[in-house]
Amino acid sequence: MSAAKKPTLAVVGATGAVGTVMLGILSERADVWGEIRLIASPRSAGRKLTVRGEQVEVIALSEEAFEGVDIAMFDVPDEVSAQWAPIAAAKGAVAVDNSGAFRMDPDVPLVVPEVNAHAARVRPRGIISNPNCTTLSMIVALGALHAEFGLSELIVSSYQAVSGSGKEGIDTLRDQVAKVAGTDLGSQPGDVRRAVGDLGPYPAPIAFNVVPFAGSLKEDGWSSEELKVRNESRKILGLPDLRVTATCVRVPVITTHSLTVHARFENEVTVAGAHEILSTAPGVVLCDNPAEGEFPTPADVVGTDPTWVGRVRRSLDDPKALELFVCGDNLRKGAALNTAQIAEVVAAELAAA
Amino acid sequence: MSAAKKPTLAVVGATGAVGTVMLGILSERADVWGEIRLIASPRSAGRKLTVRGEQVEVIALSEEAFEGVDIAMFDVPDEVSAQWAPIAAAKGAVAVDNSGAFRMDPDVPLVVPEVNAHAARVRPRGIISNPNCTTLSMIVALGALHAEFGLSELIVSSYQAVSGSGKEGIDTLRDQVAKVAGTDLGSQPGDVRRAVGDLGPYPAPIAFNVVPFAGSLKEDGWSSEELKVRNESRKILGLPDLRVTATCVRVPVITTHSLTVHARFENEVTVAGAHEILSTAPGVVLCDNPAEGEFPTPADVVGTDPTWVGRVRRSLDDPKALELFVCGDNLRKGAALNTAQIAEVVAAELAAA
Ligand SMILES: NC(=O)c1ccc[n+]([C@@H]2O[C@H](COP(=O)([O-])OP(=O)(O)OC[C@H]3O[C@@H](n4cnc5c(N)ncnc54)[C@H](OP(=O)(O)O)[C@@H]3O)[C@@H](O)[C@H]2O)c1
Ligand SMILES: NC(=O)c1ccc[n+]([C@@H]2O[C@H](COP(=O)([O-])OP(=O)(O)OC[C@H]3O[C@@H](n4cnc5c(N)ncnc54)[C@H](OP(=O)(O)O)[C@@H]3O)[C@@H](O)[C@H]2O)c1
Repeated sequence: MSAAKKPTLAVVGATGAVGTVMLGILSERADVWGEIRLIASPRSAGRKLTVRGEQVEVIALSEEAFEGVDIAMFDVPDEVSAQWAPIAAAKGAVAVDNSGAFRMDPDVPLVVPEVNAHAARVRPRGIISNPNCTTLSMIVALGALHAEFGLSELIVSSYQAVSGSGKEGIDTLRDQVAKVAGTDLGSQPGDVRRAVGDLGPYPAPIAFNVVPFAGSLKEDGWSSEELKVRNESRKILGLPDLRVTATCVRVPVITTHSLTVHARFENEVTVAGAHEILSTAPGVVLCDNPAEGEFPTPADVVGTDPTWVGRVRRSLDDPKALELFVCGDNLRKGAALNTAQIAEVVAAELAAA
Repeated sequence: MSAAKKPTLAVVGATGAVGTVMLGILSERADVWGEIRLIASPRSAGRKLTVRGEQVEVIALSEEAFEGVDIAMFDVPDEVSAQWAPIAAAKGAVAVDNSGAFRMDPDVPLVVPEVNAHAARVRPRGIISNPNCTTLSMIVALGALHAEFGLSELIVSSYQAVSGSGKEGIDTLRDQVAKVAGTDLGSQPGDVRRAVGDLGPYPAPIAFNVVPFAGSLKEDGWSSEELKVRNESRKILGLPDLRVTATCVRVPVITTHSLTVHARFENEVTVAGAHEILSTAPGVVLCDNPAEGEFPTPADVVGTDPTWVGRVRRSLDDPKALELFVCGDNLRKGAALNTAQIAEVVAAELAAA
């Protein structure tokens, strides 16, 4: 590609929950793109969507759709990515995939630009993966602390928003909340379960409740979401033996995942030292003054780009461990934003080549 | 007291959130009581409340109100207990206190009958304390596992219901939910904060949100609630040096606290071994078959007496550690029920004397 020509970007899945946020993000960020081509299923072909203030017609996914594309983002279900990202790569595009299809493939880098931008350069299959939203909601802050103190163990519990389950999750919470609002329910077993009726994508009510299960069941009682946090954190940080334990819980929040984090390091840590790192790390906002009511909550973090960190405490039993409360918008940094950042890293590489 | 005469019980704070649940519990359980005397502030004197199917008139708190009382339960604010429990004890009653006034007093036992009933016998001040609701929501299950495997460390995160903040918490969540139900809010920072208006007892919105702070701020960034979980767990289990780390988070659930627990033991553990203990331990229900969607959630546990345990997994990095998800009704076992059980233990002791 000549340095003069701006790269052509394809957004596959432009009509979805992540795709919609992506078009907003592409419209806000410094514009490094030539053509932006919008792709979805044949159901959406001909629809017009707005990006960079212009109406662009959606085209159906096909091999020809990747003609002349330099970078192709995939914001589509796993099986669609599994089939089509290699096709885009074969056509000469770099595929940046937001699905779970390739994340643990040893020939596909798993990239968070603030943590391991360098890994994006080595992509034997022409594909780069974007981590899952729960890992992404914490990993920028943990990467910064790891660089200074050397991470040895993570024990995390999540408070995951329903938009992590796509539009169906949002609709389910809104429907259920409408049914329990104004009632006196919530003091007898099964009250809420009977009132909400349809459970949507969840195995239990999500209004006036928390659900200690996300994803599908894997070996020994672990959920797929819990194993993703473990395996993806290890891969991103380049620590294949890192001790990582996660318990993933869905909560009645629309958007923005939160996590409590017990992080153990090789070296002694102090709250002051952690504050210094977190207040200067790119992509992190330190919000930690509980005396003034300052700590991150999903309602205040939603719609913003950074990873927010508060409630920083040193473990009372272990001078090498910190406790943190972390929030990140699962549709922005947790999905679309990180993909956009990866695409920009690749665009810069292509421009320099 | 003669074995023939049933003991006289006083319920101080009979009109409050915990007191109301207490009257229900006293009406349901095996009836070991003679007179049940209902006491509250002068504001409530003359009101009639139902207990054991009978109308009983509330009397105002005074020294004379304890005349002839064998056991006096206190379900009142800390400062009322601090003043009046010693007066009841001086009048010859055994005081069982649900407030935080005496829990860490070395001369006051902190009792959970399934775990340390024996401690109730040694009460130099004539006062027995009931633990806080967050500790109580997990400690029966952990006590059973400790007896078998020997506990060495707890790292817990809470998902605490609003009724833990009394009636004001419940009203605040209901009001806020009514304001956000049916809206499209929740994707821009501050949306929910502006919509809900009054924050009630919380430092941030509680509808469509989670709030990583409960109680008041103590040294080094810890909240009072987090230190209570630490100090009270140690005292109940008789393990003054137990490593305990808690992060306490409020969630939009009406009643029933949940916790994720990382529990480390002196000895190796297995899921099968933990299942065996938890399925037979008094006061515990094992609910752990995620393949069939079986795990405890607040909506199903509320209104029941036991501590429910699910999502039992052995840590992938540590054969001595278990992960658990635990739920307990914070108004029943977390407050009124445990107090009633302590009072019954004392009644049995008095009858045998
Ligand atoms: N939601 C999150 O927090 C989150 C976070 C990280 C990663 N992700 C991942 O991102 C991906 C998209 O998630 P989402 O929540 O945006 O899903 P979604 O709202 O269901 O959107 C799916 C998108 O894929 C398109 N699509 C579906 N089948 C297709 C096909 N056969 N050919 C072409 N396009 C097809 C849809 O187009 P039509 O509109 O034409 O059907 C739509 O644009 C998933 O892999 C998800 O796991 C989601
Ligand atoms: N809510 C929970 O989950 C929970 C759990 C564990 C422990 N606790 C503890 O239990 C206690 C009661 O909590 P709650 O939620 O039931 O509070 P609440 O709903 O505010 O009830 C307070 C009770 O105390 C009485 N009272 C207040 N001031 C008094 C005074 N000066 N003299 C006599 N009676 C007085 C009130 O009587 P009037 O109606 O006459 O004002 C009422 O009966 C507190 O110490 C709390 O920390 C609560």
